[in-house]
Formats: sequence, structure tokens, C-alpha cells
Amino acid sequence: MTISKDDVRERIEDMGHEVAEKIKKEKKPTIKIPVRSLSNIQFNEEDELLELGDKKSTRSFMNINQSRKFMQTMLVSNFCKELLEEDLHTSLRDMYYALKRNIGGTSENTFEDQSESDPVIVDIETATDVLREQLHLNADVRGRVVGNVVIKDRGDEVNWGKLGSGGWSIPSNLEEISFKSVDADYVLAVEKNAAFERMHEDKFWEDENCILVTSQGQAARGVRRLLNRLSREHNLPVYIMTDADAYGWYIYSVIKWGSMNLAHVSNRLGTPNAKYLGLTISDIEEYGLEKYTIKAKKSDVKRAKELKDYPWFKKEEWQEELDLMLEKGYKAELEALSSRGLKFITEEYLPKKIEEKDFLP
Amino acid sequence: MTISKDDVRERIEDMGHEVAEKIKKEKKPTIKIPVRSLSNIQFNEEDELLELGDKKSTRSFMNINQSRKFMQTMLVSNFCKELLEEDLHTSLRDMYYALKRNIGGTSENTFEDQSESDPVIVDIETATDVLREQLHLNADVRGRVVGNVVIKDRGDEVNWGKLGSGGWSIPSNLEEISFKSVDADYVLAVEKNAAFERMHEDKFWEDENCILVTSQGQAARGVRRLLNRLSREHNLPVYIMTDADAYGWYIYSVIKWGSMNLAHVSNRLGTPNAKYLGLTISDIEEYGLEKYTIKAKKSDVKRAKELKDYPWFKKEEWQEELDLMLEKGYKAELEALSSRGLKFITEEYLPKKIEEKDFLP
Repeated sequence: MTISKDDVRERIEDMGHEVAEKIKKEKKPTIKIPVRSLSNIQFNEEDELLELGDKKSTRSFMNINQSRKFMQTMLVSNFCKELLEEDLHTSLRDMYYALKRNIGGTSENTFEDQSESDPVIVDIETATDVLREQLHLNADVRGRVVGNVVIKDRGDEVNWGKLGSGGWSIPSNLEEISFKSVDADYVLAVEKNAAFERMHEDKFWEDENCILVTSQGQAARGVRRLLNRLSREHNLPVYIMTDADAYGWYIYSVIKWGSMNLAHVSNRLGTPNAKYLGLTISDIEEYGLEKYTIKAKKSDVKRAKELKDYPWFKKEEWQEELDLMLEKGYKAELEALSSRGLKFITEEYLPKKIEEKDFLP
Repeated sequence: MTISKDDVRERIEDMGHEVAEKIKKEKKPTIKIPVRSLSNIQFNEEDELLELGDKKSTRSFMNINQSRKFMQTMLVSNFCKELLEEDLHTSLRDMYYALKRNIGGTSENTFEDQSESDPVIVDIETATDVLREQLHLNADVRGRVVGNVVIKDRGDEVNWGKLGSGGWSIPSNLEEISFKSVDADYVLAVEKNAAFERMHEDKFWEDENCILVTSQGQAARGVRRLLNRLSREHNLPVYIMTDADAYGWYIYSVIKWGSMNLAHVSNRLGTPNAKYLGLTISDIEEYGLEKYTIKAKKSDVKRAKELKDYPWFKKEEWQEELDLMLEKGYKAELEALSSRGLKFITEEYLPKKIEEKDFLP
């Protein structure tokens, strides 16, 4: 799964060499890029991951509809090659500014807008089968982690268990981080920062010997990659905790099965053995939280019905959960557990769930 | 400025005692709360901070228009007292859920919505003159920091210079953190995470011996409090770097002078000696970035005109800057500097600005 920096550079260079060879032989310069549209996305039932099929499209410089995009692909590839050579990392927005310029002798710019350069990165990510972070293009950072883990990062040894209240800020790029020691029985990732802070303050991760992560909303690429690595490289169970609503379940589904947008990297960002711990709609009755639910809006109902139709939500337990939500017509936030007392989540709810392995698949 | 935990609890208890005394004497129970409306907010030219005036309003239980709010104020005060006694911290949302319940024998709830409980916290914050973090109610977390600083936090010693690429995640509550050693010549706070990552990767903070902060957008309370403490307690100059647009300048103004919403805590969240380093509209011509500007929208122009009218932007340099923006009709992002090369910001732009003390006041 892990490929070296040299390999990454070689893949980029190979793309360029192929084009150069064609030009030398006076053939039309073309590149082949896997198709990312819905028609080429499939759910791999065995691996439990969304993935791309085998379809590829050819981008040709001599096709007037494709020549601008071809030129942009070459510019971005070259930019990535330079980043790798100089060992610099940057953001998509900085790359856009760095590459935007007038094309000599014309009124055309290389890029008009960042919406032109972003998809090119995904093309190259797909064509070379590496993560954009391995091309040194970092994504937004969001999320924190605490636990009995020591990592090596840029020469520093960082102990996630010795960072006070703040925890370790999860970067976009986890490719250059190595784990020196990982002492944990499982990983618990929560959507909401407030729940993370509750568990951190109550020393839940110390008592339970687990690694505690908050995604602070939809999981950024860094959080997804971290869970993937902890699951695959350290064989740790991963439990996910979100609000009991369609948005929360979507967060879970992206962490576990991957997303359609990023189906080409599901094997590096997805965590198929993740389990859903809560909040569930059935928790609401069980813990007497009805008074603390929120009426489902039309959009919630629509979204829940969509989830029901996805092949990856076809498991019986999820169909029941989604049906229950549609029947009850309500949703609930993690914070609703605080109506039973602030420490209810760490002292009763979580220990019971984990002991009884009361998870959704 | 710093008050002890016992003092905080005493202030909350004093509020309760006052009410209890009135009830015992068969007087109407009332509390006095400083007025937070525009009429009571003033700009203190000498301290360079937005602050509240002396006006106070009385909230009475026996006034039918105020009795619900009075009841809520008592509930929240009591909740804070319990948090302090049990040494627990929580979020505003959790508090809302913890306090929401039916009032026995009526069809009324204590709170219908979080929009009812949030302002009560601000009332209590204002009435007791403590930060809500001192009442153990934490705000959202956002922002990261690196530098030659060692802090003590929950028994851990954390060295901000030894945290790899991630840096230290700035918590909401900085009240219980102490500085063990601070070795820096100044603090540089940037709006954009990408600029922070560039400077971190280029070891800018090591070379320049500075503390590097990113607010990741509008500065959260934790970031503002951190800058305030580094400035006041360690006498460090603070330089702010944002996009050259009205939103960026607003971020600066909140960090420096405080905000109208939180005028009652400006002395703890504001940093009056902060200076604005860039990006400025005049930088755009100086560095040939015209091609990388963005046309100002109507809302940008409107906002810039509003800023021009604020007393705290009345300084000549800011009036010129704002006029120049209105004249040119464009704005620019920090990332525009990348058009001059990715390392331009750390190797040329910043060193020149800092050496020449080319700041806006």
C-alpha cells in the first residue's frame, strides 16, 4: 500500500515520458485517465469499498475539445514533479496562483479559476494511483487525536498522550508520519468536538486504553487516512460515533466505505472494518431521550431514503435503523445524552455499548 | 487580570446570595446586568479597546416580561456553580440539553431552544466579569500554534516546537494553562492555514525566533485569548496577516480592538498592541500581483465603507488603505504571493516587512 517518494516521482515522470515519446515519434500526444463518472464507480461487496472500474478515457492534445485540459494536466504534473524534487508541500489554492499566467502571445490564461485546476489534480491522483498528499498537495486540516501513541513526524517524536487539553492536530498529510509505538485496544472517532472534550476530560481514553479522535464534522482526508492506517497497519477496531441523523450516517459511510468523489482512493482513505457505535434511533427510546429529539425536516427524510437505497446501506441492521428514523420522524444530537448528566456518555453509555458490542455494521 | 477559581465561584455564589437575601427579606428578587446594546458600547481611545459603559439593567423575577429570563439566569448560574464544584467543563450545546426540561405542573419548558440559553451565559459572563471559559463553558476550537514555547496543561509539559507537522491545537480554554518558557521575539498570526504550513515547512519560526499561529479563518476565542496572554504576560509584539479584503481586516480588528458582541471581555480577548503586517492593497502594486487580484463585489465595497466609519479604523494609514481598495476596486488573497514562487512569502515578503517595520497600526 505504501509507496516510496521515489516511486511517486517515477509515476509522474512516466506520464511525461510517455507524452514525450509520442511527440518524438510524431504521434499525437495523449494520456490515459481512469473514468471517474458514476458509470465507472462500483461497490466492491467483498472489500466493502467504493472503487473505480477499469474504464479509461484518453485525453488528446490534438483534440480541440481536450487540448486546454491536456495543457493544464501537463502544467500540474510538472508542478507536482517540482514539489517532489524540492521537497515542498503546498495547497491547491497556492498551486492555482503559482500556475496561473498568461499564455504568451494569446489572450488566454493557463487557468481562469481554481475550479479548473482542482479537477486536474484528481485526474493525476487517479492516473498515477497515488494520494494527492503524496504529490505534496495538502488538503484542509481539521480534527484532533489523543491516546497512548508515539509518532515520528519531521524528526520530532510526538506522544499523543502528553499534549494537555489540546491534543494533536491531525494534518492533511500523514504519508511521512511513522508510528513508533501504538498502545490501544481500539479507536473511537466522534463527529463532535464537545463529546471528544468530555471523553478527554474524563480520561476515557486512559481508562479504556483507546485512541480518541474527533473529526469536527465531516471527516477531512487526514482523519480518514489516520483511521485507515490505524486499522490496517495496527489491526485496531474502529468505532464511529455521530449524531443520529442522515448527515451523521453519511460521515460514517464516507469513513467506512469511501465516497463517490474519491472512489479512486477508497483503499487508502476508507476503513471497511469500522463499526457504528451510536447515536442510534433505538438509543433514543432506550435512554428516554424522546424529549430531546429534533423533528426530521423534509431534507432529512429525503436523505435517509437515499441512504436506504445505497448498496452499502443494504444490510438489515441499517435498513431497520433508517426505517425506524422514517417511522419516528425524528433525529437527535450526541449532546442529547447530556440530558442524563454530563458524564452519562463516558460512565454509562459508552462502556455498555462497547462491552455488549452493540454496533451497527 | 487573572482571577482564581475560588474567586470565580465566589462571584457566582454572590449573585445567588443577593437574590436569596432579597427573598428572605420579602423583597422582589432582582439581579443587575450590564447593558450590552450598542448604546452602552464605547471605543476607549486610550486603551484602544471596545468596552462596555456603566449602564446596568435590572432583571426582576416579579416582572412578568422578565420572570422567564430570570428563572433561566438562575438555572444557568447554578449549572456553572456545579461545573466549578465538580471541576467539569462542557459546551453551550451540552448545557442547553442538560438544563432543558419541563417545568413541573405546567406546559412550559425551561428552555425551548439553544438561542434562549446562549445569551444567558453572556449575561452571567458580563455580570460576574469573568470569561465563560472560567465558568467552564468551552467554545469551539480552531487554530494551531508552533514555536519555542513550553507550556503546562493538565499536568503535561508540551513543547510547541516539538510537535512535527501538526503543531499544537489551540483549545477554547486557556485559563488553566501556564507558560513554563517562552523564547520568541514576536508572534505572527496568519488567517490562512496554507500560509502557516508554508512558514512551518520553511522553518520560518525557527529562523526568525517567533511564535507562529494560524486562526484558520475568523479567530476563535482561544486564539484571541492566546494572543492576548502572549502580548500582555510576555510583552511580545503581535503581527497579523490576513487576505487583503474587508473580511481579513475585520479579523484583524477583532483580534486587536475586540468585537461589539464581546465588548465586555475585550480586555481579555483583545490585543491592542497588535499590528497589521499584510496583505495590503499597496503590496499588490509593489509586488506586481495585479493579475492575481479579485474584483471587489458590492458587498466588499459596502463592508470597506463601514470599516472606514468605525472610530478604530480612523487612523490615517487605515483610511488610506481603505480608500485605495475602493479606488482600485480589487482585493487579493494571501495565496496570490505564491504567483511569485512558493517560498516568496518566507524568503522575501515577510523578512522585508518585518525588518522595515512596514505595518499598519
